[in-house]
Amino acid sequence: MNEKDTFKLCVINPNTSEAMTKQIYLAAKSIASPNTKITCTNPRFGPESIEGFYDEAFCVPGIIEEIEKNQDSEAYIIACFDDTGLDASRTFTDKPVIGIGEASYHAANMMGGQFSVITTLPRSISALENNLKKYGLYQNCCSVVSIELPVLELEKQPNMTEEKLQAKIEHLLDKTRTEIIVLGCAGMQNFASKMQTKFGVPIIEGITSSVKFAESFVALGFKTSKKSSYSYPRQKRYLGKFHKYQPKI
Amino acid sequence: MNEKDTFKLCVINPNTSEAMTKQIYLAAKSIASPNTKITCTNPRFGPESIEGFYDEAFCVPGIIEEIEKNQDSEAYIIACFDDTGLDASRTFTDKPVIGIGEASYHAANMMGGQFSVITTLPRSISALENNLKKYGLYQNCCSVVSIELPVLELEKQPNMTEEKLQAKIEHLLDKTRTEIIVLGCAGMQNFASKMQTKFGVPIIEGITSSVKFAESFVALGFKTSKKSSYSYPRQKRYLGKFHKYQPKI
Amino acid sequence: MNEKDTFKLCVINPNTSEAMTKQIYLAAKSIASPNTKITCTNPRFGPESIEGFYDEAFCVPGIIEEIEKNQDSEAYIIACFDDTGLDASRTFTDKPVIGIGEASYHAANMMGGQFSVITTLPRSISALENNLKKYGLYQNCCSVVSIELPVLELEKQPNMTEEKLQAKIEHLLDKTRTEIIVLGCAGMQNFASKMQTKFGVPIIEGITSSVKFAESFVALGFKTSKKSSYSYPRQKRYLGKFHKYQPKI
Amino acid sequence: MNEKDTFKLCVINPNTSEAMTKQIYLAAKSIASPNTKITCTNPRFGPESIEGFYDEAFCVPGIIEEIEKNQDSEAYIIACFDDTGLDASRTFTDKPVIGIGEASYHAANMMGGQFSVITTLPRSISALENNLKKYGLYQNCCSVVSIELPVLELEKQPNMTEEKLQAKIEHLLDKTRTEIIVLGCAGMQNFASKMQTKFGVPIIEGITSSVKFAESFVALGFKTSKKSSYSYPRQKRYLGKFHKYQPKI
Amino acid sequence: MNEKDTFKLCVINPNTSEAMTKQIYLAAKSIASPNTKITCTNPRFGPESIEGFYDEAFCVPGIIEEIEKNQDSEAYIIACFDDTGLDASRTFTDKPVIGIGEASYHAANMMGGQFSVITTLPRSISALENNLKKYGLYQNCCSVVSIELPVLELEKQPNMTEEKLQAKIEHLLDKTRTEIIVLGCAGMQNFASKMQTKFGVPIIEGITSSVKFAESFVALGFKTSKKSSYSYPRQKRYLGKFHKYQPKI
Amino acid sequence: MNEKDTFKLCVINPNTSEAMTKQIYLAAKSIASPNTKITCTNPRFGPESIEGFYDEAFCVPGIIEEIEKNQDSEAYIIACFDDTGLDASRTFTDKPVIGIGEASYHAANMMGGQFSVITTLPRSISALENNLKKYGLYQNCCSVVSIELPVLELEKQPNMTEEKLQAKIEHLLDKTRTEIIVLGCAGMQNFASKMQTKFGVPIIEGITSSVKFAESFVALGFKTSKKSSYSYPRQKRYLGKFHKYQPKI
Repeated sequence: MNEKDTFKLCVINPNTSEAMTKQIYLAAKSIASPNTKITCTNPRFGPESIEGFYDEAFCVPGIIEEIEKNQDSEAYIIACFDDTGLDASRTFTDKPVIGIGEASYHAANMMGGQFSVITTLPRSISALENNLKKYGLYQNCCSVVSIELPVLELEKQPNMTEEKLQAKIEHLLDKTRTEIIVLGCAGMQNFASKMQTKFGVPIIEGITSSVKFAESFVALGFKTSKKSSYSYPRQKRYLGKFHKYQPKI
Repeated sequence: MNEKDTFKLCVINPNTSEAMTKQIYLAAKSIASPNTKITCTNPRFGPESIEGFYDEAFCVPGIIEEIEKNQDSEAYIIACFDDTGLDASRTFTDKPVIGIGEASYHAANMMGGQFSVITTLPRSISALENNLKKYGLYQNCCSVVSIELPVLELEKQPNMTEEKLQAKIEHLLDKTRTEIIVLGCAGMQNFASKMQTKFGVPIIEGITSSVKFAESFVALGFKTSKKSSYSYPRQKRYLGKFHKYQPKI
Repeated sequence: MNEKDTFKLCVINPNTSEAMTKQIYLAAKSIASPNTKITCTNPRFGPESIEGFYDEAFCVPGIIEEIEKNQDSEAYIIACFDDTGLDASRTFTDKPVIGIGEASYHAANMMGGQFSVITTLPRSISALENNLKKYGLYQNCCSVVSIELPVLELEKQPNMTEEKLQAKIEHLLDKTRTEIIVLGCAGMQNFASKMQTKFGVPIIEGITSSVKFAESFVALGFKTSKKSSYSYPRQKRYLGKFHKYQPKI
Repeated sequence: MNEKDTFKLCVINPNTSEAMTKQIYLAAKSIASPNTKITCTNPRFGPESIEGFYDEAFCVPGIIEEIEKNQDSEAYIIACFDDTGLDASRTFTDKPVIGIGEASYHAANMMGGQFSVITTLPRSISALENNLKKYGLYQNCCSVVSIELPVLELEKQPNMTEEKLQAKIEHLLDKTRTEIIVLGCAGMQNFASKMQTKFGVPIIEGITSSVKFAESFVALGFKTSKKSSYSYPRQKRYLGKFHKYQPKI
Repeated sequence: MNEKDTFKLCVINPNTSEAMTKQIYLAAKSIASPNTKITCTNPRFGPESIEGFYDEAFCVPGIIEEIEKNQDSEAYIIACFDDTGLDASRTFTDKPVIGIGEASYHAANMMGGQFSVITTLPRSISALENNLKKYGLYQNCCSVVSIELPVLELEKQPNMTEEKLQAKIEHLLDKTRTEIIVLGCAGMQNFASKMQTKFGVPIIEGITSSVKFAESFVALGFKTSKKSSYSYPRQKRYLGKFHKYQPKI
Repeated sequence: MNEKDTFKLCVINPNTSEAMTKQIYLAAKSIASPNTKITCTNPRFGPESIEGFYDEAFCVPGIIEEIEKNQDSEAYIIACFDDTGLDASRTFTDKPVIGIGEASYHAANMMGGQFSVITTLPRSISALENNLKKYGLYQNCCSVVSIELPVLELEKQPNMTEEKLQAKIEHLLDKTRTEIIVLGCAGMQNFASKMQTKFGVPIIEGITSSVKFAESFVALGFKTSKKSSYSYPRQKRYLGKFHKYQPKI
């Protein structure tokens, strides 16, 4: 259980926006331990942003492909708040796979108190709530709200994003029992520090949280249990364009 | 709200096993109203059976493609007990989309009493339980158990399948509070009637249940709410081999 | 498991208002398959409307009597949103018995998204919520609200009813996460279609939904499990005016 | 909030077995404060024992009638573990109405630790579990089990009853985490003390518990809130043989 | 199971405010049966009021000491709404120990309908909600709210307290589904009767409720189960200033 | 948000067994990053082991004292699986405080699959389950079981401990759906690695997990929200021997 000299961590942005991948890389890099070597990547194919269940579905094959390409990594982060493809990925590899959504919620719970999640569009609220219920962490969640800005606008309109985030956080702290804020989109990451200073409550952001958890789990020697739910895919034929993803012996 | 003269129903087997598609077609046909015109199809690409989260992920693009090819259908059934791709499909179309898992669980609840679900392999238990919890129907579920036979063996070894099913049902009725049996795999469908006669309790099977529900919802004029969770995919770029699935205006 | 040539369905209005029974008959008739022969009836004795737990209690003996009178029916619908007497009825017969409340909630869940229920008076909210929790479907319920109109006023004051329903639906869609509306009283049935057209979200109504479910369950050959919870009443003496309801051998 | 000089408590055995009413009276009397004047009664009509949902339904009108006949009582106890007619009774009067089931479960929770409930027949398990869930107290309930003896046999075969109770309690204490026993049928009441001595864990019985709670609530001046859920029945016509139960102004 | 001639009840105010102890004594005395001999006490050391988790922790040793000093009592009440030290106390003695919080919530549930709890400061809301969830009674709780007055101000500023309580109750009854009020602080006890008269809904207060429950449990002969969760402390060394609390053989 | 050059972490063994403190120190040290400076301490007073609610109560003042003595630390770990005093500690300081119980459960949830917890004595099961429910993580917990060995025996009888642990793990993996093991006592820590090798599933141990989480949270700049639940103790008088713990301005 000694910490490794060098630890390879693969952070996968599940959408195809390379600008966002770059941003995610910088966030991950900023918090990583010196001996963590970060590879940040995104699928070659699929949607340029994830907004709802349809987009999600077209990211998972690409995520699997990136995990396969980066098999020398010792842990994987899926950098979308919907924790897209998390179960499939955990089946594919026995190395720790962490979703930035779950990492944030677990961190919020270990800091204590009621938290609220701020996402981009109303359509994402259900997906996030489904996950919170699945993880069991919905009971400490005060609310999941949206700022009504599409994902790709966050980067294009940083001022409007900041204004809307700020107004929403103000509302949550003043009018609800919210004690902790979770920024529920990878694209909001660069506002975390500023908002934490401004409002004096923990502002939890998923990329940085999951980098530390990934480092932790590798140091701890944890692997995904292969006993049942996440046992390796059974060998079988995959036809057509998905033949290449056919499980190997 | 009058029943349509002819109603086109598209039943999608999410795996690529054409033998199973044929079997599903026969089951659907056997229960359908005379004016229901059934199309039974399966994706051109992907896994030949669904056993766990990894296989699931590689079925969803194919399911979407089949929905798109069958746009003149008035309702869709996803004929896998994991309800694979149900959320993505409901986002893609406003016509009713029904999973055979959910159809069975809702039917069991409306018949009253504790039900148990019998699936194929232990690895599928978690996926089914996750769904039951998400739908809220886990509280009336006595247990989810497996007969430890892979999906494709059901068809190849009908005798062993029958024996194992029978032994499991006997055990559930004798030793647990189970009052209703749900056969938790499309491939078990053809044993439902025989087991119901043998054991004298309702044996619920998903294909036939969902055909009747699909006919019902179309007659009732129901559509998926496009207000928020299942609003149409937002227009955006899909790169590479998934470009063809890019949401249209 | 073939659909029957003619299917006899008994719809029981649990209150003694014959005007409402007529209205329920028309709603049921409008959606029924051509080969469904509907009998719509109500008890000879008991309250003229059901508003709260007290009225409920005085409907159940009458419901049982109507089931007994209509023993040649193959399924029964209890046309009150409180699902009055559902458990007792399922004990009395092994044929499917469906409550219009449960039918609506299950339909709403299979259409996906958050639903809200609109009832008549505040006193009915608890009864509906108790049922939703018992069925497990409260978790997808956004809210149960009332329009503060007694049941019998719905028919006498159609304009006011429409106005109040419309205002309530507008509020629910604008100010809450409601994506689907359930009209929580048999007497609201005739506004469903108009409201669905007006608001563009599914407006679920219990009578029509339960007719289709009843047809479905009969076609599927489902019966209530007599193993335990709903086993036939044990033979025993019933004294006095309830002697006639004494369970037979 | 002073304790009354004399307090009239009406204990209603909801079935028509007068032998059981007598037994209930003795149990209630044995624990009551000297200034509590107990009336123990049962309906003039209805089933001689309650075993499942059907019997339950035919007890509620009789319970209401007994409450009306005993309007000078200051509190009512419904002496059936199913808490039959509790909601209807609370609507009919504003005086405290206590079910022996709920009284036992609340007492068990205030004594601390996991409890198990022992009932008569398997068919009653669902009804008891439904109540436990409705009250919120199922989470501290280890199990609900039955000794497979009909209600009326308890009195006729005291030796067999004692043997079966003893064996079941032994099993629960040895093989499960049960720390407290709830005797889930009024007819088991006279074994409570003996079993408590024998096994050294609390054996909770509903009649005595609810007598003390009724005395407490009257002393405390509590009344049922008439704000909404349990507001008085609205004035309306009741037809036929239930005309006499029609709500008065 | 006969009621004792004289029953010694020890009411422990867990904080060191003797003025509050006196007030609690008067409340307890006002409701107690003539043959109940009340001892009201408070620890010699610790905080003068309990407002949050920190204060709570420093009350438990003092509570245990008071129980030990009053070993001739037959039941104990912990007169703080947080139910401070309840589990530890139940481990230390086998006599009934009742928290005024739990007593109030159980009473509210047996009166029926949705209740709301009014506490002093926002910081106490989480502690109360945690307890409600632990007891299973959160599901019938409409809300937990605070009047933003510190505990010790309740006594010093009775007029302001009354005004704030009144305003909060008005709000809860008008704007929420609240049907019953629980006054969530021992210091609010003397407003219960007045508010009940004013608003006409049950106003539940913990001291009086728990006195009646304690009397009930002693009359019923209940003891805390020593089977597992609350078995007596195991013999072991306690060092330093807590040596005197070391469990004896 | 940069990782600190040197990070001071205070690990508090809440009991007074210095042998166990030493063992905990070695475990913490073995996993800590090179720049983490670990102080491992235990209270000067209180019980030598924690087995149930009574022992717990006498550890919290000592824990607070150790936090105060080590105010230059940047995070605190409470090294008892009951997470003793966690809420009080989070109120006392704004630096991260982590319980080894919660750390293990959150880690298990992020590794995926059903976990079981193995504790020492049956009396501890309730305390652990209460925590699991409070954190929301009970739904993924397969079972909490005990090996029926007191805490202090673990160290004295390593062979018997190993045998019993091994037998219990074998049972859990063979007979239940357990996929991950959580060793639910600090004293079992040194068997984790061996058992993980032997059984091939993740064996999670709380000391090492919480060290990594503490390092993570400090690197992330997280602090406990002081908005409400965990706001600093209000200034007030603490009498007698607890005067020294009186909150300061």
